[in-house]
Amino acid sequence: MISHLFEEDDVEITGTLGEGEQRITGAALQAVLTDLVDLSLVAKQAHWNVTGPRFRSVHLQLDEVVTAARDFSDTVAERAAAIGVPPDGRAVTVAEESVIAEHPVGWVSDDDVISWFVAQLSAVIARLRQQIDETEKADPVTQDLLIGIVAELEKQRWMFQAENG
Amino acid sequence: MISHLFEEDDVEITGTLGEGEQRITGAALQAVLTDLVDLSLVAKQAHWNVTGPRFRSVHLQLDEVVTAARDFSDTVAERAAAIGVPPDGRAVTVAEESVIAEHPVGWVSDDDVISWFVAQLSAVIARLRQQIDETEKADPVTQDLLIGIVAELEKQRWMFQAENG
Amino acid sequence: MISHLFEEDDVEITGTLGEGEQRITGAALQAVLTDLVDLSLVAKQAHWNVTGPRFRSVHLQLDEVVTAARDFSDTVAERAAAIGVPPDGRAVTVAEESVIAEHPVGWVSDDDVISWFVAQLSAVIARLRQQIDETEKADPVTQDLLIGIVAELEKQRWMFQAENG
Amino acid sequence: MISHLFEEDDVEITGTLGEGEQRITGAALQAVLTDLVDLSLVAKQAHWNVTGPRFRSVHLQLDEVVTAARDFSDTVAERAAAIGVPPDGRAVTVAEESVIAEHPVGWVSDDDVISWFVAQLSAVIARLRQQIDETEKADPVTQDLLIGIVAELEKQRWMFQAENG
Amino acid sequence: MISHLFEEDDVEITGTLGEGEQRITGAALQAVLTDLVDLSLVAKQAHWNVTGPRFRSVHLQLDEVVTAARDFSDTVAERAAAIGVPPDGRAVTVAEESVIAEHPVGWVSDDDVISWFVAQLSAVIARLRQQIDETEKADPVTQDLLIGIVAELEKQRWMFQAENG
Amino acid sequence: MISHLFEEDDVEITGTLGEGEQRITGAALQAVLTDLVDLSLVAKQAHWNVTGPRFRSVHLQLDEVVTAARDFSDTVAERAAAIGVPPDGRAVTVAEESVIAEHPVGWVSDDDVISWFVAQLSAVIARLRQQIDETEKADPVTQDLLIGIVAELEKQRWMFQAENG
Amino acid sequence: MISHLFEEDDVEITGTLGEGEQRITGAALQAVLTDLVDLSLVAKQAHWNVTGPRFRSVHLQLDEVVTAARDFSDTVAERAAAIGVPPDGRAVTVAEESVIAEHPVGWVSDDDVISWFVAQLSAVIARLRQQIDETEKADPVTQDLLIGIVAELEKQRWMFQAENG
Amino acid sequence: MISHLFEEDDVEITGTLGEGEQRITGAALQAVLTDLVDLSLVAKQAHWNVTGPRFRSVHLQLDEVVTAARDFSDTVAERAAAIGVPPDGRAVTVAEESVIAEHPVGWVSDDDVISWFVAQLSAVIARLRQQIDETEKADPVTQDLLIGIVAELEKQRWMFQAENG
Amino acid sequence: MISHLFEEDDVEITGTLGEGEQRITGAALQAVLTDLVDLSLVAKQAHWNVTGPRFRSVHLQLDEVVTAARDFSDTVAERAAAIGVPPDGRAVTVAEESVIAEHPVGWVSDDDVISWFVAQLSAVIARLRQQIDETEKADPVTQDLLIGIVAELEKQRWMFQAENG
Amino acid sequence: MISHLFEEDDVEITGTLGEGEQRITGAALQAVLTDLVDLSLVAKQAHWNVTGPRFRSVHLQLDEVVTAARDFSDTVAERAAAIGVPPDGRAVTVAEESVIAEHPVGWVSDDDVISWFVAQLSAVIARLRQQIDETEKADPVTQDLLIGIVAELEKQRWMFQAENG
Amino acid sequence: MISHLFEEDDVEITGTLGEGEQRITGAALQAVLTDLVDLSLVAKQAHWNVTGPRFRSVHLQLDEVVTAARDFSDTVAERAAAIGVPPDGRAVTVAEESVIAEHPVGWVSDDDVISWFVAQLSAVIARLRQQIDETEKADPVTQDLLIGIVAELEKQRWMFQAENG
Amino acid sequence: MISHLFEEDDVEITGTLGEGEQRITGAALQAVLTDLVDLSLVAKQAHWNVTGPRFRSVHLQLDEVVTAARDFSDTVAERAAAIGVPPDGRAVTVAEESVIAEHPVGWVSDDDVISWFVAQLSAVIARLRQQIDETEKADPVTQDLLIGIVAELEKQRWMFQAENG
Repeated sequence: MISHLFEEDDVEITGTLGEGEQRITGAALQAVLTDLVDLSLVAKQAHWNVTGPRFRSVHLQLDEVVTAARDFSDTVAERAAAIGVPPDGRAVTVAEESVIAEHPVGWVSDDDVISWFVAQLSAVIARLRQQIDETEKADPVTQDLLIGIVAELEKQRWMFQAENG
Repeated sequence: MISHLFEEDDVEITGTLGEGEQRITGAALQAVLTDLVDLSLVAKQAHWNVTGPRFRSVHLQLDEVVTAARDFSDTVAERAAAIGVPPDGRAVTVAEESVIAEHPVGWVSDDDVISWFVAQLSAVIARLRQQIDETEKADPVTQDLLIGIVAELEKQRWMFQAENG
Repeated sequence: MISHLFEEDDVEITGTLGEGEQRITGAALQAVLTDLVDLSLVAKQAHWNVTGPRFRSVHLQLDEVVTAARDFSDTVAERAAAIGVPPDGRAVTVAEESVIAEHPVGWVSDDDVISWFVAQLSAVIARLRQQIDETEKADPVTQDLLIGIVAELEKQRWMFQAENG
Repeated sequence: MISHLFEEDDVEITGTLGEGEQRITGAALQAVLTDLVDLSLVAKQAHWNVTGPRFRSVHLQLDEVVTAARDFSDTVAERAAAIGVPPDGRAVTVAEESVIAEHPVGWVSDDDVISWFVAQLSAVIARLRQQIDETEKADPVTQDLLIGIVAELEKQRWMFQAENG
Repeated sequence: MISHLFEEDDVEITGTLGEGEQRITGAALQAVLTDLVDLSLVAKQAHWNVTGPRFRSVHLQLDEVVTAARDFSDTVAERAAAIGVPPDGRAVTVAEESVIAEHPVGWVSDDDVISWFVAQLSAVIARLRQQIDETEKADPVTQDLLIGIVAELEKQRWMFQAENG
Repeated sequence: MISHLFEEDDVEITGTLGEGEQRITGAALQAVLTDLVDLSLVAKQAHWNVTGPRFRSVHLQLDEVVTAARDFSDTVAERAAAIGVPPDGRAVTVAEESVIAEHPVGWVSDDDVISWFVAQLSAVIARLRQQIDETEKADPVTQDLLIGIVAELEKQRWMFQAENG
Repeated sequence: MISHLFEEDDVEITGTLGEGEQRITGAALQAVLTDLVDLSLVAKQAHWNVTGPRFRSVHLQLDEVVTAARDFSDTVAERAAAIGVPPDGRAVTVAEESVIAEHPVGWVSDDDVISWFVAQLSAVIARLRQQIDETEKADPVTQDLLIGIVAELEKQRWMFQAENG
Repeated sequence: MISHLFEEDDVEITGTLGEGEQRITGAALQAVLTDLVDLSLVAKQAHWNVTGPRFRSVHLQLDEVVTAARDFSDTVAERAAAIGVPPDGRAVTVAEESVIAEHPVGWVSDDDVISWFVAQLSAVIARLRQQIDETEKADPVTQDLLIGIVAELEKQRWMFQAENG
Repeated sequence: MISHLFEEDDVEITGTLGEGEQRITGAALQAVLTDLVDLSLVAKQAHWNVTGPRFRSVHLQLDEVVTAARDFSDTVAERAAAIGVPPDGRAVTVAEESVIAEHPVGWVSDDDVISWFVAQLSAVIARLRQQIDETEKADPVTQDLLIGIVAELEKQRWMFQAENG
Repeated sequence: MISHLFEEDDVEITGTLGEGEQRITGAALQAVLTDLVDLSLVAKQAHWNVTGPRFRSVHLQLDEVVTAARDFSDTVAERAAAIGVPPDGRAVTVAEESVIAEHPVGWVSDDDVISWFVAQLSAVIARLRQQIDETEKADPVTQDLLIGIVAELEKQRWMFQAENG
Repeated sequence: MISHLFEEDDVEITGTLGEGEQRITGAALQAVLTDLVDLSLVAKQAHWNVTGPRFRSVHLQLDEVVTAARDFSDTVAERAAAIGVPPDGRAVTVAEESVIAEHPVGWVSDDDVISWFVAQLSAVIARLRQQIDETEKADPVTQDLLIGIVAELEKQRWMFQAENG
Repeated sequence: MISHLFEEDDVEITGTLGEGEQRITGAALQAVLTDLVDLSLVAKQAHWNVTGPRFRSVHLQLDEVVTAARDFSDTVAERAAAIGVPPDGRAVTVAEESVIAEHPVGWVSDDDVISWFVAQLSAVIARLRQQIDETEKADPVTQDLLIGIVAELEKQRWMFQAENG
């Protein structure tokens, strides 16, 4: 139920892109936003529920993922706003549209957490690389931003992978 | 779909409470966690989508709500773990069980945002005050923690209310 | 003379407490506020006027009292506002209603300052302990806040007492 | 009632000024001290009780006034002590001798707060400018200090005025 | 009148680009430099002269524009030097060649300031996007730098626009 | 042998509690102090002597226990002084009255260290929870302080348990 | 072309000076502002274009001039606003009215830069000393501010002179 | 002699690139790594052995080169790991494959050091620009990283060149 | 009772010293460790229980002793581990083997505290100077470390002595 | 014996004052410099040699005098250089021309130190107040600087006096 | 090939040691420098290539080795320069003369890394202990510096050893 | 004239050394103190009076000498006090007993300053090396301290020498 406290709002934030570029770029940013908010939530979920001999290492590394995901999601959402597309980072949207698999409830072992994050980061990165291609023409500014995000997520992915190496 | 990467995990984290106290306290903490994670998400949503002559003030104040909600949700979830109850802060759980109303999609006016947050903070606080009563006997440590959260949320609620005063 | 620049203001800040709880809690907070603002003023007064072989020690310790009293008075006043009760920390109110005795004018010896602050802190603490009892039912959030203030003031009182031990 | 804990104190702090210069300078500093302590109290009073669409801006700006007034009052009082004149910053003195009008009790609107502070700052500045003239001969060190205070208060006054411009 | 203190200087700073690339890139950087220096000057101008109920918000936001414009202008000018092209950021050059309209003299209202900056930022961004196209082949290092500048300016533009939304 | 350098000292530090409350609270605080000082010593002992594949993780986590135990012991001892009861944190007292088992001499494996600290923290927490009950009536200020200590120790206990999960 | 986005603005910021004092002081501050903004621009210009064996020393020292000139120009402009005179720091005004000679375009040798800045600082200081005389009666607050600026500029001038000594 | 302590290791770190892209990108990163590690070593070598009237300036500037080269080499090596290619930054590899000429042993004059670094930075930059071209298709993430490195090295090169200008 | 949770541990940490040197050095370090841990405990004991007109000065100075003793004990214990000798810093060991006299229970006067610490520091220093002689041949690394500790303790001893001078 | 390493140096640093003003101002600054350097030396001397029950308080307060005297002496000497007068702060000059009495060798009691510094600060302040008069016409920039020094020294003098009050 | 950019340099930096002492000390320092630079390179190499369940712990610990090795190598090289011996820290020298074994190329397991570093640190320490003996007579300043390096390296060695304990 | 304010003081600070050791060590420390205080004064003297193309480099480097000399002089003087020997750092003592030559009055060229400091540092170091020999037996704690001072001064000496290389 949408809260009745909000009246119809006819504000118009215009961006500096053409209409087609705005549509393509806005869709890319919205998809990334969904994945990044979810990544911050599942990394916290695992941060709290992980157990096993590597508890401390994994517990700390997951908080680095949370910090990165939160910072990037803010940058991505504000980029969407800056090009005139209102971002959507609500729980219901994230629950439905994120590319990340559903994380189980309850205690989880450190081994499983590590493998699972390698897999989920791979999925998020794959979608991001598509969006890098799509935004190259539409908006190099957004593309540059997404490239920076992939760089960090691939580094995190390597570190999880090395941990299980 | 729960990821198949996770094997059955028979870890047992025990707390220091009796069984009944653990059940009551765990339920209270889980409810608070849901509301706080949602609060952090809708405050960011409004932070990105607000418009109007008070944009900057509201934009900045909402980030203080985000910071408080994130810090408290971490404390609450780790308290649940500390008493032996695995916390659940996933998007799907938040989307279904939060006491906060659904935030609309798209640009929203500063007036509406302020009124809406007064209402939602009132709802979160009301549930928290119930949980303060329920945990008094079950676990004064948890109760003390929840009292500190209410103090901050009631301060934030006053500031939004004064803004529309 | 109340300044004529202020028009009648019919703002209504509502709190989350019931009417009786709000009245009891508001009265307690207002009394504490008066004492804390006065404490910050007399501690500065002594900070400037103290003389004697322990000048430096007392001069510095009094500034710690000032800092504590200022921080607590801000917390207490904002708590009053948060429950819908407008706080009053004006000089005239403080001069009339503080539980602290009148500090003399002019240079004062370090011995006298120390004894005097032990006595005044005792008076402030005594009133605070009553308010802790009164707010237990009315508002545990406020009670928790007052408990924290007593802890610090009793520590300061011990240090003055030990200085004269 | 003056506390009986203080014995007659025959300490003599001597300054480096002649008697006449000391009397003139001491009177000027005492008057400024009264106004500055009161300014810090009324700015906090408004900081807690202001309401309206500019709540956040005014709330924050008033805390800058509080910080400035507290810092300056400390400098002024210690300057009085340095020239051998014991300063008086007690609530009762402030309530009786400050040039600032009485601030009303209860919630106040942001518009009124802003107009009121322009007026009160004007009064404080006017008295300070007289004291700058009076201390020119008597003590250029004190004069220099007062000039620095006026510079800051006139800047604060402009900012309130521009806010209502 | 060029100061006679400077003798003919036959220094040669060589860059690492080919001659054509150097010419194209140098011209792009010089144009951006002009706009950024002017942006820092007009943002300060408005920072000092703005009035109205949003004075404080606009006053502070403009200083963020100043900081960004100053940092970027330094980066851009040193990039020009690094490729062997001497940058020109003098008042006379800025006054003649900036794409930004002339800012009026005297007090300006917050509404006007906000609208005006949306318009001027749009103009600066438009020229920057052309330069991003032109430098893509000539020097990807410079292009990458310009992309980062556009990202920040479009964010500032959105915030002004949302303020008037 | 008590050093003969100390003369009979007839200082009297009085607290603000009644005699019965003072006795109960003082005993509780003394017991907690003993356990906390010992906890800081055994955590350092293990910090220096631990070996095994989790050396670094355990080495670092134990230092967090040391820091917490030291800070809490200072707070607890100063609280005892503040209520007029002289605290005793000497090695001989700790060696005799701590609830913590005797730590072995020599190198210890990381597995053993982790299990041992879960057990000892459980014992310390159990005694603390009794003291929370006992001080509820006697002194809510002390009770509040002990509640905060339990919260942190139960968090540390969970982290050791999860490590072995 | 003055932007048409600005409507006629009939705001009136009043200062606390009499009319004659305001006029004299406002004119002095406007002249200083012009010179200081220009100083910040030419110091950056030289910072970017200087070459020679003392490149690094001069490059760094010029940035200290930039920082000082920017800070002072902000103080001066806000002082003008505080006395009710709108400051003008636009490129076109600076280009026309600054006392500083025109800086050449292109690379400049370190020797020439140093000599040139000694000469320009001398010119700026000479005008400032006149303004110190003129504002002595009109506004001692402004005079005090200008004295502080001269102190710093004469220090910078000495350091350039010593460099060529 | 490879240490016999290392057993055959059949770990496999996979990246997210296709095989061809991985090969091209890995080779580019390895070449850059070699040059950057060498740059950090020769800059330290000169930092220690430089003499002459510009000793201090050159000594300090070389440490900035060291810091940049060390930070970049870490980023580059971790990028290689992130795409599944093990980086090689050992002394023997650097000695054999770096593009930088051999630095002489013994004291060196500041003039020679400056000219030599302009030449060596030119060589490193030239190879980096080739790698920027080669990675454009293979991996835009790596390309973006290399662009940032060139920007900094060209700035350093300009500063050395201006020093000899 | 040694906790049964610890299994027999046959780890062997080897140092780099010969057997005789290791034995001599290990014994020296163990003795120092005992004294330093005790010093940290008795300094805290006095920090909490001191009374008298110099309370504040002594209270603060003792905390500097605590900080030094804690830092040195960590360095000494880790040095023991580094040479292959497991350190023992448990309460029972400290209570039995420290060279420091038993501190009395209860409030102590500032005069007595100061005299007592001069005496105890003298004893600790005397033993340390013996160990400096003994380790000169056995391990100059350990000797150097002990020399640094004596330097600080002799400084603390002087300051207590001067206080009673 | 003046070192023969210095050749005749015919450098000419010119100031911006007229000849007469330069002579008067230079003499004033040189006298102040002598006193301030000596003040920093005797305050250190007493800092090291003081004994007595107030050792710690006096030891710390003297270091504040040292810090102030060092900072002021640097400002004063650089001001002299800025007006073209080479400052002289050598031991031999200080030993001969300082207004401060000769400090005795050996341990000194805290009481004597305090009285002595009140007397010496009075002497330094008296000479400074003369120089404030003398520089009023000659150079208001220097006068303003001296006024700030007196303000701090009179504050230090009060604190010593209050200590003995 | 030695770069032809360097001309014959006949600078002579003289030290303060006799010729024999200089030769012995210089040789010792050069050997240590070689080992420390190599240690920093192989620690980075392992930092990037390590894999296995202890990846994160080892990855972080190795960076502490890198930091220590870099700081020590700078100190050692500048000590060589200070005694008049030009240090040599080039890749080719390191590759040929370091006492550290050749590190393999490619991914390495955490177990192997840990064992390998215990062995290599043992070798470096052994050579350092010889140099401590050799420099005792020749230069106690250098000896003291080497003692400090051994202290840190033996601590690192213990931590690796404990990790595999 | 020794101030009559000081009464005969019969305080006795005892050290922990034997009488002969105390005498030797005290004399060594007093000599070093004299040189270090003088070094701090002449380095400031040159810092203010240096001229020439290397003004900025030398001006900054001399301040590093000042900082080192001041810190070391404090350590040396407090070491003397710690062994029971009152230190003497007064201007008259420094002027008479320092090993440093008399610095000329007036502007000095950068070349001369650099050569002069190489010579003076050589003299100070030579005396320090003698004292290192003399204190080896008498007090290894003092010897260790002097070794650290020589290390830093020889580094400073090298840097001046390299500057003139």
